[in-house]
Amino acid sequence: MIPLDGMKPARVTEWADGDVRVREDQLAAEEPLEIRVDGRSLAVTMRTPGNDEELAAGFLLTEGIIGARSAIAKVGHATSGQACNVVNIELKERLVDATHLQRNFFAASSCGICGKATIESIRARGLRPLEDGATIDPEILYDLPRRMQSGQQVFDRTGGLHAAALFDVDGELLALREDIGRHNAVDKIIGWALLGGKIPLSHCVLMVSGRGGFEIVQKAAVAGIPIVASVSAPSSLAVSFAREMNQTLIGFLRERRFVVYSGELRCIVTRDPLPLVTSR
Amino acid sequence: MIPLDGMKPARVTEWADGDVRVREDQLAAEEPLEIRVDGRSLAVTMRTPGNDEELAAGFLLTEGIIGARSAIAKVGHATSGQACNVVNIELKERLVDATHLQRNFFAASSCGICGKATIESIRARGLRPLEDGATIDPEILYDLPRRMQSGQQVFDRTGGLHAAALFDVDGELLALREDIGRHNAVDKIIGWALLGGKIPLSHCVLMVSGRGGFEIVQKAAVAGIPIVASVSAPSSLAVSFAREMNQTLIGFLRERRFVVYSGELRCIVTRDPLPLVTSR
Repeated sequence: MIPLDGMKPARVTEWADGDVRVREDQLAAEEPLEIRVDGRSLAVTMRTPGNDEELAAGFLLTEGIIGARSAIAKVGHATSGQACNVVNIELKERLVDATHLQRNFFAASSCGICGKATIESIRARGLRPLEDGATIDPEILYDLPRRMQSGQQVFDRTGGLHAAALFDVDGELLALREDIGRHNAVDKIIGWALLGGKIPLSHCVLMVSGRGGFEIVQKAAVAGIPIVASVSAPSSLAVSFAREMNQTLIGFLRERRFVVYSGELRCIVTRDPLPLVTSR
Repeated sequence: MIPLDGMKPARVTEWADGDVRVREDQLAAEEPLEIRVDGRSLAVTMRTPGNDEELAAGFLLTEGIIGARSAIAKVGHATSGQACNVVNIELKERLVDATHLQRNFFAASSCGICGKATIESIRARGLRPLEDGATIDPEILYDLPRRMQSGQQVFDRTGGLHAAALFDVDGELLALREDIGRHNAVDKIIGWALLGGKIPLSHCVLMVSGRGGFEIVQKAAVAGIPIVASVSAPSSLAVSFAREMNQTLIGFLRERRFVVYSGELRCIVTRDPLPLVTSR
């Protein structure tokens, strides 16, 4: 059961077969949760807020930190600082090797940002907002999933792989990589470009299967990719980050339709002010 | 481009509207890759083999370890030990704070197993194979996705959440949790059971949206869940682990059809030996 703070409202722009409208949407919330044991930080996981005590308790069991309910004295949100994103579990007996454990647990929604869970820490790396330059025609954009899939079908006979594809703004496929982990597929694409001396990818579009999470837009921004598209929904943190980075973030890219969450001007040009539609 | 070692063959059992056949299938390979910098271990990520040098180089860039191609002297698979699952990157200048970095990077395909990437390390935790006991009728099993979805639709208005649901073997929904991270949704379910004194979940079925990866079956096994089902394909490592744990692993659970990768006897009972069909 996701409570109200599991969703965040956002104003988005929808393109459907040439028609454009602005509307209010709901995003799945993505925020870091710090799991503490006896007050000491054990892990940070990117999660959707809600049922945090269950998440912390389940994590301790499934990762082998505790063996049974009886090991737990108390579970609760920490009361100081960023209270709602910290859960502390008091154990009945002290952990023998907490330092060793801490080294091994920096979890994330699909990792790649282990231990550096917030936008602030990314900003501290000196990443600058992307330049306006590149634009893509909606008539090219909507066709990218088909172009990715026609490349993917050659390789994925298993039904179990994520794909990431790099296109130029004219819709030409530059590289396609597949992996069980979506962030790995993105790192493979970016590593291909890095080793080939093609960074920054300032006139490219990154297309990923599945959802557009924070770590995907973050990795793309590091590589200078101004436009990121996925076939499903982005998270709240992905949208916040993309807006801060002046990055174009597109979701629900299916058939002749897509939703723009950030950086509309790279893919939608209208002379008239857009009408705001409040119902979906 | 996934090379041949990106896929692993497996003999599976398919149930389709009451008809049962055995056939050969291809699974997406999932194996740990250790990324070393100047010979020192920096990160372990669960990935599909192939383009490993790109993955390592891309990881170093997108995680802020290096800023450009010019920082790299050499990239290559390590030649000793488990050679094909280790990539070493030699840098032109030494990293200043490698110890700090190492603490922060234990990546996984969707994490939750950070730094403990192999079946061996799970086995070392003393996990024992699951008992035979529980069985589920295929007529109940095939209907679980619909039952999960009808619960999910109430909460997920965003299109961006993964779901995990716990059912008893009669198909009754016991708990449903949603999260941007699939492993979080599973930890929430298991944490709910743990805090409620319901572990081991020896007569339960765990159903997850998306793929059945290693960390999902591993977490379910720790909680004593004998049957795990997903709507998509499992990875090679998930199947290996489930078979070793005598766990029933079901994939492609859609409409009146599913594929069983391990522990067939909990969900398919036939008197006759099953015919092996070699073409798909």
